[in-house]
Amino acid sequence: MNPLSTPLLTDLYQLTMLQAYFEHRMTDTAVFELFVRKLPPDRNFLVAAGLEQALDFVEQLRFGDEELGWIERCGLFRPQFAAQLAQLRFTGDLHALPEGTVFFPNEPLLRVTAPFPEAQLLETRVLNLIHFETLIASKAARSRLAAGAKGLIDFGLRRAHGAEAGLLAARASYLGGFDGTSTVLAAHLFGIPVFGTMAHSFVQAHDSERAAFEHFASVFPDNAVLLIDTYDTVEGARKAVAAAKSFRMKGVRLDSGDLEDLSRKVRQVLDAAGLKDAIIFASGNLDEDRVAGLIAAGAPIDSYGIGTSLVTSADHPHLDAVYKLQEYAGRPRRKRSTGKATWPGRKQVYRQFAPDGTFARDVVTAETDRQPGEPLLHPVMAQGRRLATPPLRVARERAMQQMALLPAPLRALRTAASPYPVEISAALKALADEVDRATA
Amino acid sequence: MNPLSTPLLTDLYQLTMLQAYFEHRMTDTAVFELFVRKLPPDRNFLVAAGLEQALDFVEQLRFGDEELGWIERCGLFRPQFAAQLAQLRFTGDLHALPEGTVFFPNEPLLRVTAPFPEAQLLETRVLNLIHFETLIASKAARSRLAAGAKGLIDFGLRRAHGAEAGLLAARASYLGGFDGTSTVLAAHLFGIPVFGTMAHSFVQAHDSERAAFEHFASVFPDNAVLLIDTYDTVEGARKAVAAAKSFRMKGVRLDSGDLEDLSRKVRQVLDAAGLKDAIIFASGNLDEDRVAGLIAAGAPIDSYGIGTSLVTSADHPHLDAVYKLQEYAGRPRRKRSTGKATWPGRKQVYRQFAPDGTFARDVVTAETDRQPGEPLLHPVMAQGRRLATPPLRVARERAMQQMALLPAPLRALRTAASPYPVEISAALKALADEVDRATA
Repeated sequence: MNPLSTPLLTDLYQLTMLQAYFEHRMTDTAVFELFVRKLPPDRNFLVAAGLEQALDFVEQLRFGDEELGWIERCGLFRPQFAAQLAQLRFTGDLHALPEGTVFFPNEPLLRVTAPFPEAQLLETRVLNLIHFETLIASKAARSRLAAGAKGLIDFGLRRAHGAEAGLLAARASYLGGFDGTSTVLAAHLFGIPVFGTMAHSFVQAHDSERAAFEHFASVFPDNAVLLIDTYDTVEGARKAVAAAKSFRMKGVRLDSGDLEDLSRKVRQVLDAAGLKDAIIFASGNLDEDRVAGLIAAGAPIDSYGIGTSLVTSADHPHLDAVYKLQEYAGRPRRKRSTGKATWPGRKQVYRQFAPDGTFARDVVTAETDRQPGEPLLHPVMAQGRRLATPPLRVARERAMQQMALLPAPLRALRTAASPYPVEISAALKALADEVDRATA
Repeated sequence: MNPLSTPLLTDLYQLTMLQAYFEHRMTDTAVFELFVRKLPPDRNFLVAAGLEQALDFVEQLRFGDEELGWIERCGLFRPQFAAQLAQLRFTGDLHALPEGTVFFPNEPLLRVTAPFPEAQLLETRVLNLIHFETLIASKAARSRLAAGAKGLIDFGLRRAHGAEAGLLAARASYLGGFDGTSTVLAAHLFGIPVFGTMAHSFVQAHDSERAAFEHFASVFPDNAVLLIDTYDTVEGARKAVAAAKSFRMKGVRLDSGDLEDLSRKVRQVLDAAGLKDAIIFASGNLDEDRVAGLIAAGAPIDSYGIGTSLVTSADHPHLDAVYKLQEYAGRPRRKRSTGKATWPGRKQVYRQFAPDGTFARDVVTAETDRQPGEPLLHPVMAQGRRLATPPLRVARERAMQQMALLPAPLRALRTAASPYPVEISAALKALADEVDRATA
């Protein structure tokens, strides 16, 4: 059993509800939508990500022998339930925002149309995947906005929340604008460019820094980025320069201290030795705000390694992402819980543009209510069969292009005075009133 | 290839350093220690967790055909490297704090003693596992301190950072004092008690709330916790009471609105109907502070479901956990990077107790420097072979017992005026001076 794809990676209530749906033959078509209720602090937009992994999960969804054995043994379900689960496959349709789409609250990222039990069962894992990758792509986009054309590398695996978080953070941060990752498995599975330097342990294990640098460069003669802050950074730079007489040093890495001051001093040491092409790589508790500060101060840093703050989305490690029933058996539905009311029915989002091509406003409306602009939701699975989706680098390009088309105030790291306009259409409001009257 | 156990789930520099170690025959014994440099805000202690998963990883560590194929094809390494990796197994010793141990900054959770390449290679994934579970066990402990004897259930899977985060958050939060989880896979793999109620979609899909309640209870006649906030909470309670004439209702769940006010009104409705034993379950953007507030206000809530804030450790989603070389080839080592200096050599931690049995102070010292008190690090792997470790429920009991032995101010949700005393021994300070003179 693979913990990443087993349907037991779900909330118990999905299974208890499924038994009830089966017993009462509640298997009519249900429509669920996955959306974000509101933006976190300091966010003006989000970047859709995680659809590919969600499609993998949905396509492969089935209960195998180990899962069915647990269902039979756990004592919570009636005997016929396991046999019903054994038959279950996803046979429905999915519509989604393509990965890399810039989007806003109340806009569905994903619409699921399927027999009720199938659609219900997707909730936990599909949210788990799309929530996380969207969180990290949106966080990465902030660093890209701060860093301009400077290099950005994901260094976060060790403090990501487990294996899949580390792996998918590498993917989502690349999608959101990073240049690569240190995570080897992400290079292997997703073709993301992989980068690495050396650790302090490498330097410490040698009798001197210079010996460590010469040793590393002898093994990687064209590609050595030397870590120079183990004992004293500027002194480390001098030792790197001295060692570099015998090889071509690609650059140095600073991982502690006052990076603005140290980068200037190290740049002087490198330039004085004629190593104008040697790059300065900076890391150590960085985030988009520190990168913006270093760039504003003119620190001569070429590339940034960002770890923990990126892969945990440290300033706000979650989105208010939900998966809600919008229609069942042909009737639109909504909940009215305090502070958590939803808009009913199957929806589409239209994006309208200003004359200069920038984004002007989005309209969220009923699927059947054609509006001016470009529809954002597209079919990605039909009757359980996956349709072609673009590769990761195309999704990354989409994200970069769309971020460039945002009104300038929305590209800032702080909340803009005016949020991007997302209009709920008259048709949708009328539908909500109608649903309320019917369930009053 | 399993993404959860493959050695390609690592930072690239671990592999480049390994090639350099192999080429220069730097395979003498290295000692690394994993520790936390400082406490996050609002934390007075941490709870050790994740050792079991780390031991699984270390025991199974090997490069298979798919991994070796990538190493050969990626163009970064010399031809003989893949053959060297094919032979690599972990043959060293591990010492660790038992899971559930309450610990403090600068105290090693794990000490790794092994040939340098083996010990180096563990860094990324072992940190990834122990960092995350310790983060979540420590966060869960705060809810347990706030909740007293009330029920606490992990509801976080959907907004955990991927599959492994959801699964291990269930484990770590149980270890830190929760009563169970909604994550089915955690019940199957770890034997953790599993709980569930129903979702709003279940209620919405029925023509009336009462029909939904009666339907659910007919399928789960002894175990129905009814979700009553889909439209109007107090009205929902009345419908639940009406429906419950035909079955034994276990309780109701509130998921939105003013939980203090609503829980009182709902309790009145239940009591007036003679349902004194029906429990009130509360959920919806809860964390330890909100639980403490509801309990202080006397809200009649029996059990709390906590999700996102728990599994992301939302107020501080990371620890300053590191894995540092402390000795190589018989010589103690340390780094002196600004703000990141380490204490050198193999260490042990002794815990000393007050006459009433509460924790008085810890002393961090050299392994060979016997101090009064109880040594906290124990052998858990010898020459690559795993030693017996206690089951999860014993670790959970240890955590509960140790939290009860903390001085009272350290059991608060805010930072205590005086931190717990962790003394660096004279022997360790003398060793650091000696190392500094040798590398000056």
